[in-house]
Amino acid sequence: MNWKHMTEKQIIRTARKLARPFRITNGAKFRLKDVDPGDTLDFSPDDKAELKERLAANGIRMLAALQDKLYADDKWAVLLIFQAMDAAGKDSTIKHVMSGVNPQGCQVFSFKAPSVEELDHDYLWRCVTRLPNRGHIGIFNRSYYEETLVVRVHPELLEKQKLPPQLVGKHIWKERFADIRHFERYLTHNGIIVRKFFLHVSKKEQKRRFLERIEDPDKNWKFSASDIAEREHWDEYMAAYEDMIQNTATPEAPWYVVPADNKWFTRIVVAAAIIETLADLDLKYPQVGPAKQKELAAAKRALLTKK
Amino acid sequence: MNWKHMTEKQIIRTARKLARPFRITNGAKFRLKDVDPGDTLDFSPDDKAELKERLAANGIRMLAALQDKLYADDKWAVLLIFQAMDAAGKDSTIKHVMSGVNPQGCQVFSFKAPSVEELDHDYLWRCVTRLPNRGHIGIFNRSYYEETLVVRVHPELLEKQKLPPQLVGKHIWKERFADIRHFERYLTHNGIIVRKFFLHVSKKEQKRRFLERIEDPDKNWKFSASDIAEREHWDEYMAAYEDMIQNTATPEAPWYVVPADNKWFTRIVVAAAIIETLADLDLKYPQVGPAKQKELAAAKRALLTKK
Repeated sequence: MNWKHMTEKQIIRTARKLARPFRITNGAKFRLKDVDPGDTLDFSPDDKAELKERLAANGIRMLAALQDKLYADDKWAVLLIFQAMDAAGKDSTIKHVMSGVNPQGCQVFSFKAPSVEELDHDYLWRCVTRLPNRGHIGIFNRSYYEETLVVRVHPELLEKQKLPPQLVGKHIWKERFADIRHFERYLTHNGIIVRKFFLHVSKKEQKRRFLERIEDPDKNWKFSASDIAEREHWDEYMAAYEDMIQNTATPEAPWYVVPADNKWFTRIVVAAAIIETLADLDLKYPQVGPAKQKELAAAKRALLTKK
Repeated sequence: MNWKHMTEKQIIRTARKLARPFRITNGAKFRLKDVDPGDTLDFSPDDKAELKERLAANGIRMLAALQDKLYADDKWAVLLIFQAMDAAGKDSTIKHVMSGVNPQGCQVFSFKAPSVEELDHDYLWRCVTRLPNRGHIGIFNRSYYEETLVVRVHPELLEKQKLPPQLVGKHIWKERFADIRHFERYLTHNGIIVRKFFLHVSKKEQKRRFLERIEDPDKNWKFSASDIAEREHWDEYMAAYEDMIQNTATPEAPWYVVPADNKWFTRIVVAAAIIETLADLDLKYPQVGPAKQKELAAAKRALLTKK
């Protein structure tokens, strides 16, 4: 296929084909070991440069066009959630896929360790206040899912949440998953479309990227020793991610489990998934009805008769 | 000059040259009639296509690079305020100049007519809660300056603000200007750099754009008859803008009065002004000191000895 002259329909069809293998709409049968972090589908690492060009030329143009309609239509909002281990490429994926999109219609929030004020609230509170407006794409760099990940791997964080002790039972994770499913269903009923991305990097590739960061004077200032400490908990994290996806991948709010050992491939799949999501909304510019037509004609007359 | 191979220094020098004629740091002597909305400096409309290419290739690349440093440095924030009459090009300028920038470091807020909750607060309240985080560029599409513009031209809006009557005297606009100056100085003292843009379109060009919008089926749905009604108040608005700039253009928070009859030129000047602003901060990636060097070396050893 000549990617330089693809029609919109061809781009959307291709996006669906690229995103589909990684979309989980029913978590029950999901096993993390079935996804290879090094997967690149039919692509070979050798066509990397050409792929980048394709993504740039088609994907970004398509994303910008779809977002423009989302903004004009002003009815739906799209919430994109990114979760991953350190160095899996959350920040750089957001940067590369979403640069080119009008920042007026795109809001990104990075959730860090909760503040004292935030800990004084329920765990969804800080996320609810950052949900995207209608017509906007909202991006959560980490999210309320951390409440089933880092908080699960480090039980001392759960204690800090000041929950009444009788509410912290052995079913707490199942309860959190159910509450999150219901919350996302509520959002869906209100026109806020939720799509979730787990960037699945291998432990080996994380090590390679950490070492690369340490050597790079433009990047090593942001490296912290605590990033390595978390590697000790790798298997616990993987178990927590798998349980999370099994319990919260639903038809209305699917997870995309994206192979993340090759950054160029991660970006292609994420862009494809966002294109697929926006295309599913069948967005159109608002139509001008008879009443509005009349108003426009009157406006035109007024403009032409006055200075 | 060969714009395709400009160095960073050349881009910054050129940006300063392009932005400087339109920067007002001392309002006392400012007269709106001295700025021609059709001004394009030494450029002729004929090199429009080439200019666009220059802006795309150099300006956008430069802006993205500077924003990346702003984000890494994480000390300063930059607040860009856009004010203008309808159809002067606020939205499209924001879209064209800021697309290409990482949305993770850029927040845009559009201020509309205040809500009931917002009217129950002082007029800065809703803007304060939307100020940019450190390391971010924040864009206000309209702002607290509307409190000295639309509210001044339509006194009934001032009544809705539920101020104690004895506080609404004949000096209210001077008081608002002084309060805003002090607020912006406070922000400056806290590392939030304020730059303000008035996109100065002529009444004639606004008419042409309104007529164009009415005829364009992709745009006419967003046209409202009330847009025309405001043209009746053109002279009052111009007087309010002039008074506003005279009273709030300061060395620490200058206004850029940007000719807006030619969209391509507006974008060039705005991009240049933002580049100038970021370049003035002399941003650098954080340096790694001896303690951090030691931490990095230990991290590397730990990575290499474990799986």
